[in-house]
Amino acid sequence: MNNLIYLDNNATTKVDERVVEAMLPYLKEEYANPSSMYDFSKKSSRAIKEARGVIKDFVNAADEKEIIFTSCGTESANTAIRGVLNYNKTKKHIVTTKIEHPCVLNVYKTLEKQGYKVDYVGVNSNGELNLDELRNIITDETALVSVMWANNETGVINPVGEISQIIKSKNPDTKFFVDAVQVTGKIPIDVQANSIDLLGISGHKFHAPKGVGALYVNSKTMITPLIIGGHQERGKRAGTENVPYIAGMAKAAELAIDNLQYEMTEVKRLRDKLESNIIKKIYNSRVNTGIAERVPNTTNIGFEYIEGELILLHLSDLGICASSGSACTSGSLEPSHVLRAMNVPFTAIHGSIRWSLSRFTTEDEIDYVIDKLPSVIEDIARISPYQKELQTLKNLKN
Amino acid sequence: MNNLIYLDNNATTKVDERVVEAMLPYLKEEYANPSSMYDFSKKSSRAIKEARGVIKDFVNAADEKEIIFTSCGTESANTAIRGVLNYNKTKKHIVTTKIEHPCVLNVYKTLEKQGYKVDYVGVNSNGELNLDELRNIITDETALVSVMWANNETGVINPVGEISQIIKSKNPDTKFFVDAVQVTGKIPIDVQANSIDLLGISGHKFHAPKGVGALYVNSKTMITPLIIGGHQERGKRAGTENVPYIAGMAKAAELAIDNLQYEMTEVKRLRDKLESNIIKKIYNSRVNTGIAERVPNTTNIGFEYIEGELILLHLSDLGICASSGSACTSGSLEPSHVLRAMNVPFTAIHGSIRWSLSRFTTEDEIDYVIDKLPSVIEDIARISPYQKELQTLKNLKN
Repeated sequence: MNNLIYLDNNATTKVDERVVEAMLPYLKEEYANPSSMYDFSKKSSRAIKEARGVIKDFVNAADEKEIIFTSCGTESANTAIRGVLNYNKTKKHIVTTKIEHPCVLNVYKTLEKQGYKVDYVGVNSNGELNLDELRNIITDETALVSVMWANNETGVINPVGEISQIIKSKNPDTKFFVDAVQVTGKIPIDVQANSIDLLGISGHKFHAPKGVGALYVNSKTMITPLIIGGHQERGKRAGTENVPYIAGMAKAAELAIDNLQYEMTEVKRLRDKLESNIIKKIYNSRVNTGIAERVPNTTNIGFEYIEGELILLHLSDLGICASSGSACTSGSLEPSHVLRAMNVPFTAIHGSIRWSLSRFTTEDEIDYVIDKLPSVIEDIARISPYQKELQTLKNLKN
Repeated sequence: MNNLIYLDNNATTKVDERVVEAMLPYLKEEYANPSSMYDFSKKSSRAIKEARGVIKDFVNAADEKEIIFTSCGTESANTAIRGVLNYNKTKKHIVTTKIEHPCVLNVYKTLEKQGYKVDYVGVNSNGELNLDELRNIITDETALVSVMWANNETGVINPVGEISQIIKSKNPDTKFFVDAVQVTGKIPIDVQANSIDLLGISGHKFHAPKGVGALYVNSKTMITPLIIGGHQERGKRAGTENVPYIAGMAKAAELAIDNLQYEMTEVKRLRDKLESNIIKKIYNSRVNTGIAERVPNTTNIGFEYIEGELILLHLSDLGICASSGSACTSGSLEPSHVLRAMNVPFTAIHGSIRWSLSRFTTEDEIDYVIDKLPSVIEDIARISPYQKELQTLKNLKN
């Protein structure tokens, strides 16, 4: 792939070469089953122990025993949600948000069929959660509140510390699950400072491979396992451990910590440069999130009166990867449930593009996009049926 | 690790170098999310499609759509068992065997607590399933029968084709799940010829890495997903696909097919050489499976009146890896539930060792074990409290 400009890091990331290096011994000579008794298994069991310590520090858990390795962020979320509800089946009320990832929303749709009442808290036009609505909806019967730390499509950050206070003041027994998949490596994660009970992460969103994740469950929170079998992960997740990927995710976490400052300054600078130049140069563009606080790598920009899928096709021809929503729902022509919850105007919702950078994004790449995008949009606007409206926008801008 | 003699291939296997090579592109440059729309994702989505075709052929499924990729054999089994039962909740009777892998048995223990009736079919002293007991136990209420194709500790093969006929003649609506983890790469797998409804495999048992598996579900069998979320795997298993490992497992399946004849002749010859020499040279040894039909790589040998854990420690010092049971239960001092179900005499059950070879096992390695083992056993026998019984055995042999 020559001249690939990858601006879809919220869908997945490039595996860091140092992560691949960290995994290779366990894909080659150190192949022992970490549960075996002989000396040969010591290196693989030690790799898991060390990785658990790294992930504990990465999220600032109190104890390594609070970290469970899983096969992905979706498994982490399923384990957290269904684990809490199955452990204590008396309470049947759940609170979540309208903008959760499809993997979480689909779990709730299934739970609704099983007799749970699920309330979905809304957001304002910037994508910020309605905390008053959240406060009013929690009752004595609320078993679980689940809120994503940052939204995958907009990057908007939810104030999880404040949310946790609201939850615990209304019902101290309610458990709080945070889907942290989109903040890993972008902002600091601290489960203790934010009083989080359960938190899920996914390796492939921070330069580890697809197929590994972790779930933090604090020592006061009991769950039933989702995958039942052997004694692995202290009975919380059976199955022979994926030693290479667990070691790789630990390396990725170390690198994420090392690069956090760079992400919050330099990646942010490039994101802001991309965003401000698009807004300046392209008359029918708008930042969909207004002034909301966001992770440093993401911007969601609406191009009014044109089709997002067409933009993405033109960009793909130029070697530029971006997306119109979650990869898990791509192929669907339905507008994003997140942008709908934000009441993004219908004129922009179909033409909204998510750009998500990483520490591997270069200034040249951003300059290239800034250079090429205006004529892409112009070409598409030329065949839009909304010529009058586009002309009005153009006049407004000039 | 110098001079490592790895005879624990039923616990896990060395990843074949060609499997690592097949994975590397997807751990490096081809990192796109296969669900994404742009050109860059085409290679990773094609890798999954091709892998699905390979695994379809590997188990001789009728259609690629019948193959679901999972994160391990345990997830495959959990998905199959709970998926069938959750899809149709009216029937509450399950039949399985006393010798299933702990991952399967623990699922059933959980289901018993949830109101299911589970019957566990026994085996004879060779480890062969009691088919009459199986036949008599299936009723109109039987939702599922689950039988492992070969046992992990003894290698004894269950006649799944015959079992399937028994099941379908008693109740054509009963679904048949086969845990095929221990036969992959050792004997041919044919789900159609054996009328199997669901079949689980695990990559790391046939020279792919730990952390990937597959589940075959025939087109007539409906299941609910275990991991709910995105649209991946046709809604049967959510989560971003582990493209590198899926490509790797496909390569491992191709290599397994290429090496099947070698496994059934040359690996079997080495296994038989190891077994017959141990029996010939070591007076207190016995083959625990008698004349039962076994996979070609496994032998389970009891050493009477001595402790298996001590044997394993001595072997580990010599760089020889073997085991006393499933890695998933290692560390436990309880004798194996499989050997107990076989009524292996108490004199031998604590001193039983599983030896499991692979295509990487060499003649020199087997000769080394044959050379070293007698004095290991002799040293341990010398400190056994059963000197009189050992002397009787020695006299019998001579």
